Amino acid sequence: MADFELMQELQIANDSKIVMLVIDGLGGLPMEPGGPTELEAARTPNLDHLAAKSLCGLSVPIGPGITPGSGPAHLALFGYDPLKYEIGRGVMEALGIGFDLHDEDVAARGNFCTVEKGLITDRRAGRILTEKNVELCQLLRGIKLPGVQVFVEAVKEHRFVLVLRGEGLEGGLTETDPQQLGVPPLPVEALVPEAERTAQLFNQWITQAREILADHRPANMVTLRGLAKNPGLPSMREVYGLRAAAIASYPMYRGVAKLVGMDVLDTGEAFEEEVETLRAHFVDYDFFFVHVKKADSAGEDGDFERKVSILEHVDELVPAILDLNPEVLIITGDHSTPALLKSHSWHPVPTLLHSCYCRADQTDEFSERGCSRGALGRFPAVDLMPIAMANALRLAKYGA
Amino acid sequence: MADFELMQELQIANDSKIVMLVIDGLGGLPMEPGGPTELEAARTPNLDHLAAKSLCGLSVPIGPGITPGSGPAHLALFGYDPLKYEIGRGVMEALGIGFDLHDEDVAARGNFCTVEKGLITDRRAGRILTEKNVELCQLLRGIKLPGVQVFVEAVKEHRFVLVLRGEGLEGGLTETDPQQLGVPPLPVEALVPEAERTAQLFNQWITQAREILADHRPANMVTLRGLAKNPGLPSMREVYGLRAAAIASYPMYRGVAKLVGMDVLDTGEAFEEEVETLRAHFVDYDFFFVHVKKADSAGEDGDFERKVSILEHVDELVPAILDLNPEVLIITGDHSTPALLKSHSWHPVPTLLHSCYCRADQTDEFSERGCSRGALGRFPAVDLMPIAMANALRLAKYGA
Repeated sequence: MADFELMQELQIANDSKIVMLVIDGLGGLPMEPGGPTELEAARTPNLDHLAAKSLCGLSVPIGPGITPGSGPAHLALFGYDPLKYEIGRGVMEALGIGFDLHDEDVAARGNFCTVEKGLITDRRAGRILTEKNVELCQLLRGIKLPGVQVFVEAVKEHRFVLVLRGEGLEGGLTETDPQQLGVPPLPVEALVPEAERTAQLFNQWITQAREILADHRPANMVTLRGLAKNPGLPSMREVYGLRAAAIASYPMYRGVAKLVGMDVLDTGEAFEEEVETLRAHFVDYDFFFVHVKKADSAGEDGDFERKVSILEHVDELVPAILDLNPEVLIITGDHSTPALLKSHSWHPVPTLLHSCYCRADQTDEFSERGCSRGALGRFPAVDLMPIAMANALRLAKYGA
Repeated sequence: MADFELMQELQIANDSKIVMLVIDGLGGLPMEPGGPTELEAARTPNLDHLAAKSLCGLSVPIGPGITPGSGPAHLALFGYDPLKYEIGRGVMEALGIGFDLHDEDVAARGNFCTVEKGLITDRRAGRILTEKNVELCQLLRGIKLPGVQVFVEAVKEHRFVLVLRGEGLEGGLTETDPQQLGVPPLPVEALVPEAERTAQLFNQWITQAREILADHRPANMVTLRGLAKNPGLPSMREVYGLRAAAIASYPMYRGVAKLVGMDVLDTGEAFEEEVETLRAHFVDYDFFFVHVKKADSAGEDGDFERKVSILEHVDELVPAILDLNPEVLIITGDHSTPALLKSHSWHPVPTLLHSCYCRADQTDEFSERGCSRGALGRFPAVDLMPIAMANALRLAKYGA
């Protein structure tokens, strides 16, 4: 909290604008030793030109060697230490499917699993088809609990979200997945006395779910993980004094933005439409989070060329953002998604920060190699917001 | 404290000398995009030559994006985390004017302000002239309090220092400046029971000050901020085993040096005189803090050319310091003061450390861009002292 105390103490109001463009999964790897990464292979004259006038570096989302999920990676970009502000898996999954989570809700991530004589034989029920998942969730919606509303939402394959809504519910609960085979699922237990009733409600729900699923092998049982409430993060307004808005089309990112108190703007999915949304609301906010999803998807698919062409497309639209003259423009990613790995990775993420006062370094190419020569060096992602606030002249001096 | 425990445990006595030359406000910015910073514009052959044989980097005084005051910035250079060792504004102002603060004193930073019918209408009393301030402080010296000595010292414009001296005084007090207009000043309240009497004494003083000032509009009232004692930092002797001396002509820096237990040497104001003082006392101490004020003043005045010529003058005297053959020579700044901003700034500070064992990097120019290529990278200022101690061969191995 020390950092937030500092931000809260030092923040100054003015009219400057900060735009943070997050290219999801931006960082990459060469497909073969010595080759270019996706960003190095892409023709990005606008980004390169901007890098030459910017402060550059490689951002470490969570910590050395840690591959982040999207939730914690975005929290870090917004300046919230993701190891301090833990968000339960249930809340994260609920955000990921765009579920409208209320403050009093307790959300759990559910897994369908297979049991024989009560003992788990497959923790993922053979990764059942999502269609089957939807059908089973429909059945589970028949379960009623005293005094609370119950929501069951399918996610993908064996994963679903279970949300209890009502007065007096509490997080602080154990998980039921024993994380091994040949043993029974565990009961939910309260870690704090206030969560006793909530634990009982979850256990009642599980008992009824077991009965309903009994004949639906392989998905004949469930486990619950990460049972928790929305952690109630301080808003970006409270922390930085910024009126913040999110321009993102995917539910997960809209959800994370809501967690830190951003207004989520209506926008089309294409990057052109997002830039148009930015232009339309430019006077209304101080901080804009603009999210480009497709680079990550291409990386996850292992499609190097598609990721290259998406990055080239982003490059073409950079001038349209610069035309708005934001006092601070950050271009970064939440994490790397190298096509070579077909997944998120731990590699630091190319990052540039441009402003009148940024003190440009000698980087002349927006790329992994270029940014490794930047004056920011290899830096924690959570450092980005304080540096942006400084460049926006929104921080007073500390001490005399 | 973890770091100090390590220093205290590992320190070794020997005859090596460490000289830390602090060029106040050293770091800068280009006046126009792509141009040179002050240090880059300055002809500094000696510093460049030394950089080529040194370990270089950019030091971050407090934290990313944080613009430091001189007090915390110097504490960081001496290895004291300024966010852990907070120094009250009262103490800092008292040090700044060279007031001889005793350990039992409680110091407050005072502001003259304007009230109408008891409500604040100007928190700075229209920034009255310093001459007026001196006159009013003289009047306020008439206030007597039971059992304690009272000191009132003018600072500048609307600012003064109030010090209470006597047995049993305590910090842990609230401030009286409500930080907004249209409301009355707040009373001093004790945050801990031991400070109850001190709070009462300050409130008695304020009551009398209000009466004395009643007819002196616009300065017809006062507020008090940062009411605290000297925080009692461990000395550099205790932390590092170093006999430390300060060569600085401005009261603020002499004061901060005293806070960490340095002997403050008599010296002339010119840098030549400071170097002469260093030579004269070179055998008497292990660590020397040598402070060059004028680069900061030129930056604060927005005078790029004057800052350039001061840096060139410092460069000319570097050989005189090298002639003394200190085992470790550090050249750095407490913070940046770009002429472009006419104020302290958050930008990291060019830094070099030279010793027989420093492992020189590829930096061949002592400048912002040059040091950004240094092997120290962008590093916390508090790391400098442990690295200096190591290069002075004053630290034993940790663990077997």
